[in-house]
Amino acid sequence: MKFGGTSVADLDRIRAAAARVKREVEAGHQVAVVVSAMSGVTNQLVGWCQALSPLHDAREYDSVVATGEQVTSGLMAIALHTLGVEARSWAGWQIALHTDDAHGRARIKSVDGEALLAAMAAGAVPVVAGFQGIGPAGRITTLGRGGSDTSAVALAAALRADRCDIYTDVDGIYTTDPRITSRARKLDKIAYEEMLELASVGAKVLQTRSVELAMKERVRVQVLSSFEDKPGTLVVDEDEIVEQALVSGIAYSRDEAKITLRRVPDRPGMAAAIFGPLSAANVNVDMIVQNVGAGNSTDMTFTVGRADLPRALAILEETKGSIGADTVMTDPDVAKISVVGVGMRSHAGVANIMFATLAAKGINIQVISTSEIKVSVLIAAEYTELAVRALHTAYGLDA
Amino acid sequence: MKFGGTSVADLDRIRAAAARVKREVEAGHQVAVVVSAMSGVTNQLVGWCQALSPLHDAREYDSVVATGEQVTSGLMAIALHTLGVEARSWAGWQIALHTDDAHGRARIKSVDGEALLAAMAAGAVPVVAGFQGIGPAGRITTLGRGGSDTSAVALAAALRADRCDIYTDVDGIYTTDPRITSRARKLDKIAYEEMLELASVGAKVLQTRSVELAMKERVRVQVLSSFEDKPGTLVVDEDEIVEQALVSGIAYSRDEAKITLRRVPDRPGMAAAIFGPLSAANVNVDMIVQNVGAGNSTDMTFTVGRADLPRALAILEETKGSIGADTVMTDPDVAKISVVGVGMRSHAGVANIMFATLAAKGINIQVISTSEIKVSVLIAAEYTELAVRALHTAYGLDA
Repeated sequence: MKFGGTSVADLDRIRAAAARVKREVEAGHQVAVVVSAMSGVTNQLVGWCQALSPLHDAREYDSVVATGEQVTSGLMAIALHTLGVEARSWAGWQIALHTDDAHGRARIKSVDGEALLAAMAAGAVPVVAGFQGIGPAGRITTLGRGGSDTSAVALAAALRADRCDIYTDVDGIYTTDPRITSRARKLDKIAYEEMLELASVGAKVLQTRSVELAMKERVRVQVLSSFEDKPGTLVVDEDEIVEQALVSGIAYSRDEAKITLRRVPDRPGMAAAIFGPLSAANVNVDMIVQNVGAGNSTDMTFTVGRADLPRALAILEETKGSIGADTVMTDPDVAKISVVGVGMRSHAGVANIMFATLAAKGINIQVISTSEIKVSVLIAAEYTELAVRALHTAYGLDA
Repeated sequence: MKFGGTSVADLDRIRAAAARVKREVEAGHQVAVVVSAMSGVTNQLVGWCQALSPLHDAREYDSVVATGEQVTSGLMAIALHTLGVEARSWAGWQIALHTDDAHGRARIKSVDGEALLAAMAAGAVPVVAGFQGIGPAGRITTLGRGGSDTSAVALAAALRADRCDIYTDVDGIYTTDPRITSRARKLDKIAYEEMLELASVGAKVLQTRSVELAMKERVRVQVLSSFEDKPGTLVVDEDEIVEQALVSGIAYSRDEAKITLRRVPDRPGMAAAIFGPLSAANVNVDMIVQNVGAGNSTDMTFTVGRADLPRALAILEETKGSIGADTVMTDPDVAKISVVGVGMRSHAGVANIMFATLAAKGINIQVISTSEIKVSVLIAAEYTELAVRALHTAYGLDA
């Protein structure tokens, strides 16, 4: 049972979360708990570090911000005691949850499950401080924002848990953003790969790495609300989903910007010359389209994160001359719309439904990219809601 | 260099403390730093634990409250980096500072100085989270309120430091409370044993255990202000104090209450019968006087902490009958006045000056007790200031 920041935001919510844990224990389950920092605490700690120095030592940052989860774990253990549930808190270094030394965004290398299993066998619920581990040099590491989800999945794997329940402030994963259409439906089950592709739907419910880890370790994850008493959405292997829909959900992102390089010389090595410097500057390039060359030049269109646009442009203005491109054009008012579903693998025509639906609404497609279980298009941002609603209906997802 | 809660109360004060550290480093000294929690933080963490359960598990309490010092140590390290001083933070378990398992008031068993000495040899200032250690079971322990002073002295001993500077919000140890007489003088030096006896002067500047430890380990401690640039008071071995005054200071305490048991049978075992049950109930008895018996009964007078008075009375009402005492009388309006000085050891007549001075002011002495370096009297509370001022003048302490 993993409780996020809003689920342990204050003492009352910590008590409520403890009551949920007690219910599971009384139902005869062996339970381990992972907690985030009380909401707001991490931001305050991060703010202090940044106020002292924008370029602070990541090892000190980790030591400071990891305290938020340590506090919650101790408080949660006390709350469980008051309900008559045996429990004890564990910091990341006590378990130990070993990570690499990439402070601030460390990756889990191994989790010692033995001490926790022994504690559970003795009847005590372990309450683990999420988001943190211990690096090779014996210093505290953190896993990046949202890292408590990954802590929970890693622990579930180490404990060979039947399920990893992620309690949060949404009640599950939806076919699309319910703020865009009231016809959005909560999914009972979703496949790991779909979950990864749908990350942009529903405000990033799970940290991407936690889903990757769950997929790799075959941990069944449930996303559910800590404020309501009803089942959430199970994130599982696609084999476990009996009635596979063609499409599971419609995702969108308005955080993209489109860049077009006009009249790039049509010769080998051009892509490397353009994208190499961007990659070196840590600018993530997403969709890429190269038009069929007309004569001896071509147009290259791609998207970058909107926040990266100024940096990308500065780099391209420098490289433009050396590669002999003509002009750089940009459009920040674009949206990426994606239809996602493992059912696509065995069915043709999924993309066609998308193109026809958008055409019928008069929406122009600027860029297309596809993967095995996803079709994405770039459109003018103003059509975002219209496109999402039309596709939601077209793929039979409406409630 | 140890910085207390008010000396690291916010980011600006942490920066100012870091600047002090830098100055010492630039003066060519090897420095280790110990920090308290930012003032207010510990109270908030303690408040959360108590709100969840007044009888919370002390192990969880320790894990929660120890985070305050961990935060400061990381922030201080970052502040030092911005000043170009190499530094790294250390939690109690990282050093390691080993304690017993008396959570909430653990005692230090040993301190591994090797890792810190190696870090210092490599040019990095260790910034140690005070107040905390690691117990035999690998769990975080805390040393009790004010425990960071003890952390600092223990580290100074382990590092064989020349001096342990305790930066605080007072600028040193005074001959008496400056709020009572403007003639109070800051002492340049004071002996460990005097410091222990004077604990009640100047708002408990140092945790008593830190002074005991400093005396045992022969650590020279300096108490000084983190807000002013001037020397404080050195707490040292009495051999180091060349011009030893007869009396170093006048202490007072209004936290006492007097209890008199009338007509206690004058036979062996009475003291044990009276004080045994009080001790068992953790009531600390201070001054004890047994009057010379008149006939076959005697009066027994003693003091307890004022907060313990109701508990003490409840116990005495129970034991009164079995021991055959007549009545229990109490007086909470008393004050204990003490003159303290290692010089007393070699000089007679110190007590006489006290008695004569008080008599001249018309102050009645209710109880007297003496130790090797202290004479204490119990008087009516209303005479406290008058007595302190008169004695301060009588012993030649006036500025």
